[in-house]
Amino acid sequence: MADPLFTPEIRLMLEERDAAGLRAFCEDLHPATMAEVLDGFSAGQIWDILDHAETTNQAAIFEYLPQAMQLELLSFDRPQAAALVGKMSHDDRAGLLRRVPDDVRERLLKGLDDAERKDIVALEEYGEDTVGAIMTTDFAGLAQGLTAEEAIEQLRQQAPERETIYYNYVLDEPVQKPGGRTVRKLLGIVSLRDLILAKKDARIRDLMRDEVVAVRAGDPVQKAAQVLAKYDFVAMPVLDSDGNMLGIITHDDVIDVIQEEATEDLQRQAGVGRIEGNYLEASFLQVWLGRVKWLAILFMLQMITVNVMAWEEEKIRAFAALVACLPLVMSVGGNAGSQAATLVVRALSLEQIRPGEWRRVLGREVLMGLALAGTLGVLALFRTYFLTPSSLVPDGSILFKLTLVLGAAVVAICLWGTLLGAMLPLAIHRCGGDPALVSSPAIATLSDVTGIIIYANIAMLVFRG
Amino acid sequence: MADPLFTPEIRLMLEERDAAGLRAFCEDLHPATMAEVLDGFSAGQIWDILDHAETTNQAAIFEYLPQAMQLELLSFDRPQAAALVGKMSHDDRAGLLRRVPDDVRERLLKGLDDAERKDIVALEEYGEDTVGAIMTTDFAGLAQGLTAEEAIEQLRQQAPERETIYYNYVLDEPVQKPGGRTVRKLLGIVSLRDLILAKKDARIRDLMRDEVVAVRAGDPVQKAAQVLAKYDFVAMPVLDSDGNMLGIITHDDVIDVIQEEATEDLQRQAGVGRIEGNYLEASFLQVWLGRVKWLAILFMLQMITVNVMAWEEEKIRAFAALVACLPLVMSVGGNAGSQAATLVVRALSLEQIRPGEWRRVLGREVLMGLALAGTLGVLALFRTYFLTPSSLVPDGSILFKLTLVLGAAVVAICLWGTLLGAMLPLAIHRCGGDPALVSSPAIATLSDVTGIIIYANIAMLVFRG
Repeated sequence: MADPLFTPEIRLMLEERDAAGLRAFCEDLHPATMAEVLDGFSAGQIWDILDHAETTNQAAIFEYLPQAMQLELLSFDRPQAAALVGKMSHDDRAGLLRRVPDDVRERLLKGLDDAERKDIVALEEYGEDTVGAIMTTDFAGLAQGLTAEEAIEQLRQQAPERETIYYNYVLDEPVQKPGGRTVRKLLGIVSLRDLILAKKDARIRDLMRDEVVAVRAGDPVQKAAQVLAKYDFVAMPVLDSDGNMLGIITHDDVIDVIQEEATEDLQRQAGVGRIEGNYLEASFLQVWLGRVKWLAILFMLQMITVNVMAWEEEKIRAFAALVACLPLVMSVGGNAGSQAATLVVRALSLEQIRPGEWRRVLGREVLMGLALAGTLGVLALFRTYFLTPSSLVPDGSILFKLTLVLGAAVVAICLWGTLLGAMLPLAIHRCGGDPALVSSPAIATLSDVTGIIIYANIAMLVFRG
Repeated sequence: MADPLFTPEIRLMLEERDAAGLRAFCEDLHPATMAEVLDGFSAGQIWDILDHAETTNQAAIFEYLPQAMQLELLSFDRPQAAALVGKMSHDDRAGLLRRVPDDVRERLLKGLDDAERKDIVALEEYGEDTVGAIMTTDFAGLAQGLTAEEAIEQLRQQAPERETIYYNYVLDEPVQKPGGRTVRKLLGIVSLRDLILAKKDARIRDLMRDEVVAVRAGDPVQKAAQVLAKYDFVAMPVLDSDGNMLGIITHDDVIDVIQEEATEDLQRQAGVGRIEGNYLEASFLQVWLGRVKWLAILFMLQMITVNVMAWEEEKIRAFAALVACLPLVMSVGGNAGSQAATLVVRALSLEQIRPGEWRRVLGREVLMGLALAGTLGVLALFRTYFLTPSSLVPDGSILFKLTLVLGAAVVAICLWGTLLGAMLPLAIHRCGGDPALVSSPAIATLSDVTGIIIYANIAMLVFRG
């Protein structure tokens, strides 16, 4: 989006201390574009650039900067730092303050007013992957007795501080709770569109929608993301367990959650533990831990193949050709199995398969496994009969038997891998576990162990017979 | 969300022909909830239920039904079918009409008015994965000369037919194009919030934001999704190549695109070709094609291992223990490689790695590969020395050599697999190809071929030496 010429232009302005030019940049560009342009400047330079903008503009640009840069900027003891943090949307701010060092945190909190400080402390009580942690508390609340005209006037006054004034929450009278906290029950929702379309003297209580879809502050963010995506909402209210209004979550946070979840699913499918943040920015130690954990587990599981080979090797070792074909035959189970596992895990996570439907999945995958195995079996017969290197097969009768073994083993292992890949996630899901534990490498490892047994025993049957 | 008791209640009402009860259900529940409740009823029953609601309600519920059910409902020759399609949001409608049989399509188009019919034909010109295909043309346009008060009054009148009146598009005077089409240039954007906050007699041209972030109708939807997610927009204008306003895309369509893309990425990572729709709903033939294509390609690639084994087998065949450890050693490269490939492919698709940064990735993965290989190497030494079945190692000097071979081979293959997994996607990306072609099974296959060579030659060196 950003013009590649902006960066050298700003560098020149910084050198020439061109205050008017820098201010114009900060004011004319969309804050997200400006944040992109600032990528590549140091924290000190960014402060020098931001200094020329108004606080509101500074805050808007600050919000779009990468979190690593925000943290670096806050480590500078600038008087306006607290103001920038004060103007951030409440959810992003909570995420940021979780990561600043204690001394910086103290300094920033001191610079904020009392209400903001309380709000920050309240949001910090929720766990990092809960709705409470990504909700924002700057929603617009209305009393049910107002008229449409009064409500619009109130929103006009509230607008500068609210994340959205398009979806407004009708709240009951405040109730004092033990401990001094006041709470207000959510009664309904009224959109600005409803208010604009209504007669001026219509009452909110008659305009509001009282069948409200809401989430709880303690719910996992993934659940909220699913609900919001399903209903196509822009924002959704967050309640405590008594139905009191706590905040709202908005579509932009949900898009972020969906992106992160997709990344996590992909990494888990490849047998990578949870890694936070960008590929190049994540800490080496954390990435190493996320990767070595699964590599070591898979390696130890795969060690079983040495024992299996110790039992079974006699059955194939007599013929060099049988040993030579082992890697080919084994690979079929892993490939077919990781396809099936991925499809089933994703369908479970999108709730496309319901708990009672495992028989339908089994039926489908048996047919699919047969269809896939048939195709690969034909390829195996062809390849073995016509293309086996002559050094491996001294005579025609051995070639014939080898072809038979390969065809039968590829069919059996492909079918077995497919069923393993499809059924294992369902079984884990049924036992209350997380089906995404069934990664592609895990399926490959399991089907390797069984694949050797299947192959060696088919070979023994054919070559003895 | 939906109460599980709703379904039996509706069944009872259908049997008892309780028109008032069915109408109340259709009117009181959120259309998305009602659509969920209807899951499990036949198309005929759903028509019987919808018959009791008003057309607006019918249309809202209809929009939330799964596309397969929508298609089934439209196959009934009901007079109100065209009206329901007429009230759908324009983007969903275009997607649906692409899939109905020609005779149903003709019947529906006949029931629509002229403007709607033109709009449908216009949207169909765009390819299925372009912005044009998911945009909606029912946006709110304003002339720049209006005052804030006049604009609000105009929006009030337009509201019932518009997807959103919160983001409004300021358009230039219409210009007649050759061929009879009129077009209007996009001049700026003004939000309803801006209009409400402004003085009543302020002019739109002074209120509007003229630095507009827009996408082109021919852009891929993925690009639009990225831009919208980056700027946290609720809606974004779609322009033709001359800057004329064509439509808008909205956050809910983008969430769908992001979900679909994540599913596609996961499937590709597991070596599954594109599959449209739900796991259990997709056609057997399509799923078979998507899976067998890659299985066959991988199987044929893996056939190279037979030739490699034919050359290299002599080097390990003398000792049963070396053959028995082959599957273990080979698996390491595939597992380490699919981790690296997945991380790099995802980072490329989220644009976390820029084109010039391949050296940084290489540096990081060399270090990471060494750190991972070191850990697995130690495990290999330990396992081989202490746990190799005694049937495989007749004497101590062989055990010592075997331990050495395993340790060295595991380190070398782990490092090699990691580099292969990290560099191959970058190389494909650099050549203009799609890095997601590098699936986990593909990396496993490639590293199997090279793994055999590495293992056999380390074995020869150690046992000859």
